[in-house]
Amino acid sequence: MSKVRKILLNENEIPEQWYNIQADMPNPLLPPLHPGTQQPIGPEDLAPLFPMELIKQEVSKEAWIDIPEEVRDVYKIWRPTPMIRAYNLEKKLDTPAKIYYKFEGTSPSGSHKPNTAVPQAYYNKQEGVKRITTETGAGQWGSALSFACNLFDIDLEVYMVKISYHHKPYRKVMMNSWGAKVHPSPTDLTEAGRKVLADNPDSPGSLGIAISEAVERAATNGDTKYALGSVLNHVLMHQTIIGLEAVKQMEKAGDFPDVVIAPFGGGSNFAGLAFPFLRYNLLEGKNVRCLASEPASCPKLTKGDFRYDFGDMVGMTPLIPMYTLGHNFVPAPVHAGGLRYHGAGAVVSQLLKDDLIEAQALHQLECFEAGITFAKAEGIIPAPEATHAIASAIREANQAKEEGKSRTILFNLCGHGNFDMQAYADYFDGKLQDHHFTDDELRANLKTLDTPEIK
Amino acid sequence: MSKVRKILLNENEIPEQWYNIQADMPNPLLPPLHPGTQQPIGPEDLAPLFPMELIKQEVSKEAWIDIPEEVRDVYKIWRPTPMIRAYNLEKKLDTPAKIYYKFEGTSPSGSHKPNTAVPQAYYNKQEGVKRITTETGAGQWGSALSFACNLFDIDLEVYMVKISYHHKPYRKVMMNSWGAKVHPSPTDLTEAGRKVLADNPDSPGSLGIAISEAVERAATNGDTKYALGSVLNHVLMHQTIIGLEAVKQMEKAGDFPDVVIAPFGGGSNFAGLAFPFLRYNLLEGKNVRCLASEPASCPKLTKGDFRYDFGDMVGMTPLIPMYTLGHNFVPAPVHAGGLRYHGAGAVVSQLLKDDLIEAQALHQLECFEAGITFAKAEGIIPAPEATHAIASAIREANQAKEEGKSRTILFNLCGHGNFDMQAYADYFDGKLQDHHFTDDELRANLKTLDTPEIK
Repeated sequence: MSKVRKILLNENEIPEQWYNIQADMPNPLLPPLHPGTQQPIGPEDLAPLFPMELIKQEVSKEAWIDIPEEVRDVYKIWRPTPMIRAYNLEKKLDTPAKIYYKFEGTSPSGSHKPNTAVPQAYYNKQEGVKRITTETGAGQWGSALSFACNLFDIDLEVYMVKISYHHKPYRKVMMNSWGAKVHPSPTDLTEAGRKVLADNPDSPGSLGIAISEAVERAATNGDTKYALGSVLNHVLMHQTIIGLEAVKQMEKAGDFPDVVIAPFGGGSNFAGLAFPFLRYNLLEGKNVRCLASEPASCPKLTKGDFRYDFGDMVGMTPLIPMYTLGHNFVPAPVHAGGLRYHGAGAVVSQLLKDDLIEAQALHQLECFEAGITFAKAEGIIPAPEATHAIASAIREANQAKEEGKSRTILFNLCGHGNFDMQAYADYFDGKLQDHHFTDDELRANLKTLDTPEIK
Repeated sequence: MSKVRKILLNENEIPEQWYNIQADMPNPLLPPLHPGTQQPIGPEDLAPLFPMELIKQEVSKEAWIDIPEEVRDVYKIWRPTPMIRAYNLEKKLDTPAKIYYKFEGTSPSGSHKPNTAVPQAYYNKQEGVKRITTETGAGQWGSALSFACNLFDIDLEVYMVKISYHHKPYRKVMMNSWGAKVHPSPTDLTEAGRKVLADNPDSPGSLGIAISEAVERAATNGDTKYALGSVLNHVLMHQTIIGLEAVKQMEKAGDFPDVVIAPFGGGSNFAGLAFPFLRYNLLEGKNVRCLASEPASCPKLTKGDFRYDFGDMVGMTPLIPMYTLGHNFVPAPVHAGGLRYHGAGAVVSQLLKDDLIEAQALHQLECFEAGITFAKAEGIIPAPEATHAIASAIREANQAKEEGKSRTILFNLCGHGNFDMQAYADYFDGKLQDHHFTDDELRANLKTLDTPEIK
């Protein structure tokens, strides 16, 4: 009865450094390539888009990077986040497994995204940047960056996919509340946008177009930079604050995970929780399973190829060595918008290639069912992205029950579902379906790629 | 730089008793009266609607009431809540005042309402109740009770004002996620509802009708009880968990408030934070100002009469000694739906009558402006109800600046605004207005009452 549910840390226990797994990977990353020349790129190629400190972090081999005091001060608004023992869920599943979750939904914008939005805004501010541009689909990243830019007094322009802009007006209002400008993309503010509108004035937009617009605005304005919410190495590294806290919390709980699970979109959610535990495998002979939970509607880790591919859909970004379904791949329209991305960041891709992490693809009906089971047991209604980790955790717990063995499961509850009620309404109304891509369909799309292969 | 923002407590510091201010009030409460006979009512009059334990709490004169272990276990899902030092807001206001806020928005339903929903569900369960009915307007109370009833395996029927049901579909989905049934009221499930529908098939509903429906269902079904989210003595007492934690947190911060501020609807929000501090005035000679912040659209504390009046709009409930604008009063349509109630609970009313607490009425434009100032400084977007406390706190901080004197301010940030984005959209779009009732208008309505006056 007097069991402790929430394992808490105090503000002075917020980690003082991020963990950079590039220092400890057995095989180093292959270099990113220039989209035109296909030759390795250097810092100068990225300088128009990112502040130099982030470019340095992108290629750093240092294991630990100091978190600036000003960033830790902002982290204190919601960090450390709680790690919670899911007693009620364990009971409902009647499992011998111990289940913990790290809850990142306590941030002002409701997900883990501010963990990197805040340092990105900070480093831009340090280097005199006056304005940042970014794109957003479902709105989580745009919200997080709005929150962060407001605190560092940087103007933010968010290019929001037009159809989302109209379908999710409340995300836009949230961004406005923190002072950001939100444009329904395509706009007539950019060459890229005008071109699309000339061809199709009623274009609903796409993430690819929104990226093009945001990048163009940054590249063509001296005082403006661009920011990305996942995939890149520095973004993944900033998110390790999640796992570093969880390591401390596991110590407080007198426990250690057998398996660590996180949803997988571009990789920052997963990297954030898993890498600080994976470090114990790489350096201290531990054997924590690190399981990425991806949507079956976009199964790049379980069904994609490891090869060079573009980060965006239109082929403007550097070529990245990644597990990909093809930058032209169109995921099935599931509600976990944050996971609908064709490729995986370079670091997670290399780790998967080297068999150091695992992946699992789940259909959305199983995930929503898991989400409701979780909400009824633990009280928190999870974001659709987060339900993937819950569903994988439930599979692990059920397997523990079948085997009659305990195991310690830790997953990332990366956000609350307060802005995703329409998804739950559709689920309750029986409007959601699972979409199964055949292997032939996926192979056929990969065959259309003409980007460099990796031997 | 290494300032501590969040003053946290551990789960084992969750208070073990609620504080019942009835034990320490200089003047006892006047008795509630039967709506028909106008004679004082006894426990048996309330027994069809409430479990006996809650009825006992309603009239108890014990200062401390034990919180059942099972209730504390559920509180652990989100409690203790943080008390936060608003350094950024202080800086933005350039005030010598120290500002703290208690943040109740970390609960699963996003407000302080579960603090009473959980024990109400628990006591009902203990007494074998199978089903609870309630009404909800904006949806906060319905959500909180849905969350609580699900955990204690009680069926819940929520009568939601029809126009809100259609305007706020996401609150309904939230209630469904926790397994509650939500009916757009008026329904054809009750005599009261059928009567309204017969007269007006297109009725948009009202809180008064919804209460009638919920009460009728409970009164006419043996295994069904009714639950209320504010006003009643036991509800206010359950909310003292907020202030009891805050007292401990102030101790940890090495501080003590000069003024404690909370939004005022029916009284539970305010009582929850203020009563444990008011206790120091009553028993230990302290002089904390306890300030209730009410909407100018419904100014019962600052402009109402202290007299007997009905708790509902149709005159079915017992007559309560309260500050009221009249049970037939129609508040201006502001967005802080949770504060649009014609009367104040008996306890807060008696305390105001005895000059032991203060009240202030604020217009909504000032409140929304304060809300945005707060969101930009502290990150959290507040519920419209909560912005009233913020606006009052800002007034206090500005006054401190004018006087060149420090003071310690504590307010209740009773909920987040994630489900209130339409209100912010309307504010940004310039669609919100202030509504000023003249004293003559308010007096005229009060003159229509034929309920007993208090000398």
